[in-house]
Amino acid sequence: MDARSYKDIPSPGRILLGPGPSMVAPRVLRALALPVLGHLDPIFLSVMDDIQQLLRYTFQTKNEFTIPISGTGSAGMEAALSNFIEAGDKVLIGVNGYFGERLAEMAGRYRAQVSRIERPWGEVFDIEEIRTALKKDKFKFLALVHGETSTGALLTGVAEIAQAAHENGALLILDTVATLGGAPVEVDAWEADVVFSGSQKCLSCPPGLAPLTMGERARAVLRARKTPPGNWYLDLGMVEKYWGEERTYHHTAPTNMNVALREALRAVAEEGLEARFSRHQETAELLWQGLQEMDIGLLMPEENRMTMLCAALIPPGVDDLAVRTSLRENYNIEIAGGFGPLAGKIWRIGLMGFSSRRENVLNLLSSFREILKRG
Amino acid sequence: MDARSYKDIPSPGRILLGPGPSMVAPRVLRALALPVLGHLDPIFLSVMDDIQQLLRYTFQTKNEFTIPISGTGSAGMEAALSNFIEAGDKVLIGVNGYFGERLAEMAGRYRAQVSRIERPWGEVFDIEEIRTALKKDKFKFLALVHGETSTGALLTGVAEIAQAAHENGALLILDTVATLGGAPVEVDAWEADVVFSGSQKCLSCPPGLAPLTMGERARAVLRARKTPPGNWYLDLGMVEKYWGEERTYHHTAPTNMNVALREALRAVAEEGLEARFSRHQETAELLWQGLQEMDIGLLMPEENRMTMLCAALIPPGVDDLAVRTSLRENYNIEIAGGFGPLAGKIWRIGLMGFSSRRENVLNLLSSFREILKRG
Repeated sequence: MDARSYKDIPSPGRILLGPGPSMVAPRVLRALALPVLGHLDPIFLSVMDDIQQLLRYTFQTKNEFTIPISGTGSAGMEAALSNFIEAGDKVLIGVNGYFGERLAEMAGRYRAQVSRIERPWGEVFDIEEIRTALKKDKFKFLALVHGETSTGALLTGVAEIAQAAHENGALLILDTVATLGGAPVEVDAWEADVVFSGSQKCLSCPPGLAPLTMGERARAVLRARKTPPGNWYLDLGMVEKYWGEERTYHHTAPTNMNVALREALRAVAEEGLEARFSRHQETAELLWQGLQEMDIGLLMPEENRMTMLCAALIPPGVDDLAVRTSLRENYNIEIAGGFGPLAGKIWRIGLMGFSSRRENVLNLLSSFREILKRG
Repeated sequence: MDARSYKDIPSPGRILLGPGPSMVAPRVLRALALPVLGHLDPIFLSVMDDIQQLLRYTFQTKNEFTIPISGTGSAGMEAALSNFIEAGDKVLIGVNGYFGERLAEMAGRYRAQVSRIERPWGEVFDIEEIRTALKKDKFKFLALVHGETSTGALLTGVAEIAQAAHENGALLILDTVATLGGAPVEVDAWEADVVFSGSQKCLSCPPGLAPLTMGERARAVLRARKTPPGNWYLDLGMVEKYWGEERTYHHTAPTNMNVALREALRAVAEEGLEARFSRHQETAELLWQGLQEMDIGLLMPEENRMTMLCAALIPPGVDDLAVRTSLRENYNIEIAGGFGPLAGKIWRIGLMGFSSRRENVLNLLSSFREILKRG
């Protein structure tokens, strides 16, 4: 082992305009780098309390159970599913993109009987097909993706969907990994039962934590389990005792990541949700308009278009990878390509959290103009 | 929401001498706070490569599969177990403390038939009882804790234990959460099959990552599975494709935590394992001697005593919690109490990684002398 062969890594200060992670404000990076606190230190316990309160604000909920799971967004998804599945349970999952597929795959791991409502990537569900699907069987839950990062599709009418689920005795589990903190996620008003997210998108904290909230209807289902959840690390009953007044040791929380999350959520609260949503809307409109002026089309129609993730259609004859590489190497900007059926067909441009700023959009549009020799 | 009610948190720079998290060197905190990199950025991909190489050095292994799991030590434990259990598999688990109990509980979640070798907390297993237990049935694996943080007990003779496991057709799974980077963990020389750890103890990186390595014998068992692992986030087959040349997207790695882990491992390599183990030994001996001079006894006999975690017997008549609170409030030092059968009976004093320094030991001993009015 020649330790000298490992140098300091380059830190170019990338302009992150992909599907996440997003850029993180200096104040959050400073909080991340504070000296480590013990996970039972009274200061850290108050950090845990603050996070829960700030997450309730962000999720627009009074749910007592509102905490960050100690893993990335996928761990949040697995926590949301695994705690509500016992072997043989029937569940209904909407699949219109990559993360819908993942919901279905994960639910299968816990031996659910998975029924799917499917739409091609880039389309969205309407309430009638959801109602019809819910009536076909006795489902324990319906799981849907609010903002599908693989396509830029935004699910609308969540309150109606939740009502339909409840009328059929099902919970609604909602993936808001991409949307929380960037667009309205009204957990209580919508009566969504289990809602999870990730730290690294519109909350603009580094990846590594997955906020999750659940309401009374979901907690009753959890309490009625006949078998313990199939997953120990993500067992919400144990996590609840750790984050609640009992402080029963479960696992060591990622302390620095939580201190950073508190700071990121404090920034959300200082800006205010309404102002934050408006900012995401305005920068998105600036991007959409700029792309359209360059004759670059958008995959999603405006009514179902996410503001924080835009799927732009790659113009005919343009080399996807060459453009993205040039953006990174010559302009220090990261965007992403498509994958699955949309590989080579779209660019995915993220304007999430601290990345969602006018200067970043103007920079990207100018860079595109140079590379594509348009406009 | 009155955002102004959330102030900057106090950051007293605690001297962390508990069972983890340990203190983190300034260079690692600086790396942690570097601006975020995308998880597919070529710079981040090289960080992932470096981490694998540096972890191989630290684990003393040539195992190709050597990566950090994206969760805390408990997630590493669950990854190590869940990937090697199919429903009904018989497994053998050594329980002589809290983390042995946890191994048994987790294995049960994945529907293993769990047999236990038990010893009271504070005792260790000998090779003969392990050999006898292994012969009682056809076990898929034997899982043991190398350093039991709840008691300070160090397992010795791991190479012999591994050999006995292999002679009986079982893998050896070893929990080195507390020991890796502080005492010899010789994965290849011992022929341990699956070995996991945590970032926040002797590696002195904040909590949130769990290094894990597995050898060819374990990989063959993994490939021979008839069903997919019960856990998606911790599915080592998928994690392998993400960390390997294929870079198949699985989950978004905690980017900043990984940049910090690289720096922490670089510090391990620069110091060198031998020097690091000697340092842990020397500071431990200074602590042991100082405690004994104050007539404070030690739970473990020297031959099975961890250097990075010392269980000190609380003298009769001394108020456990009052001492620990005074240490924190008046001396800015964190140590921990015991739990389970050892609650109120021991203090757990950690000298892990960057915390394992002479000045910290001298500081703690002087503080103890003041509080206990001894010596």
